[in-house]
Amino acid sequence: MAKAPKTLDELFHDTLKDIYYAEKKILSALPKMAKAAQNDDLTAAFEKHRAETQEHVARLEEVFEMIDHKPQGKKCPAIDGIIEEGAEIIEEYKGSPALDAGLVAAAQAVEHYEIARYGTLHAWAQALGLSDAADLLQSTLDEEEATDEALTELALDSVNQEAEAA
Amino acid sequence: MAKAPKTLDELFHDTLKDIYYAEKKILSALPKMAKAAQNDDLTAAFEKHRAETQEHVARLEEVFEMIDHKPQGKKCPAIDGIIEEGAEIIEEYKGSPALDAGLVAAAQAVEHYEIARYGTLHAWAQALGLSDAADLLQSTLDEEEATDEALTELALDSVNQEAEAA
Repeated sequence: MAKAPKTLDELFHDTLKDIYYAEKKILSALPKMAKAAQNDDLTAAFEKHRAETQEHVARLEEVFEMIDHKPQGKKCPAIDGIIEEGAEIIEEYKGSPALDAGLVAAAQAVEHYEIARYGTLHAWAQALGLSDAADLLQSTLDEEEATDEALTELALDSVNQEAEAA
Repeated sequence: MAKAPKTLDELFHDTLKDIYYAEKKILSALPKMAKAAQNDDLTAAFEKHRAETQEHVARLEEVFEMIDHKPQGKKCPAIDGIIEEGAEIIEEYKGSPALDAGLVAAAQAVEHYEIARYGTLHAWAQALGLSDAADLLQSTLDEEEATDEALTELALDSVNQEAEAA
């Protein structure tokens, strides 16, 4: 029997499960990154973003409710791979002057994955007429973009020089 | 025996190997995405980006040469995961109205991974005083950002409506 064609609302729901899984993985990765960082401002940035990520998870749960689905994750090989690369950096660069530069790079790969996904989900929510969901997704997107910019500034202001000067 | 501390030039070289592997994986994924797309403009966008990606690989080979290393890839679990998610979309949404919307999302996850990596590599090349390498990396970064924007426009102009109208 042929499967029924899948429509945008199903793609939206599938992708919501993908980012819900991703946010929870990020929530457990951030304390390890905060602990590994040598630069205090970088530790503070990771801790601040962990608090935001808890809020992002709560917003996703609201969006699930708006489309009458139970919050549920779906294994996301992309975030698994991105976080695996971050763990490799911690392992390979432990005690090295370039560790923090590597951590910033790993964190920005995470942020850009989220920026891609939230940008897409926001556009789909609008196409589906889910304007309250679109607003929640936009709030998270704004925070992911701000985090990415803050990490760029931290890298340019101190972290990259510290890695290079050593 | 303790390992020698790794410095920014080694991190730059490691990350160059990561994105070199990634670009080659993307080069082999793009024709599959172009073939799967239902919207002719989307097929054309993937084909155009494949040609650009060949140029990105060539630029990376120039950067390897500038730092006196042989071009070499290093398994990158992040891009493997991101491309695996794109392959899942093609499999799960084949023949469905939302396929193209899913393909755009998959391609934008790829673009954002590259934007993160090239942004980082550009900043590190500058910190290392490799200004010619920085210029090459910036050229690719500009093209990845332009591709991401073109995909957003295509999604908003036609692809999302096609997925929703079906």
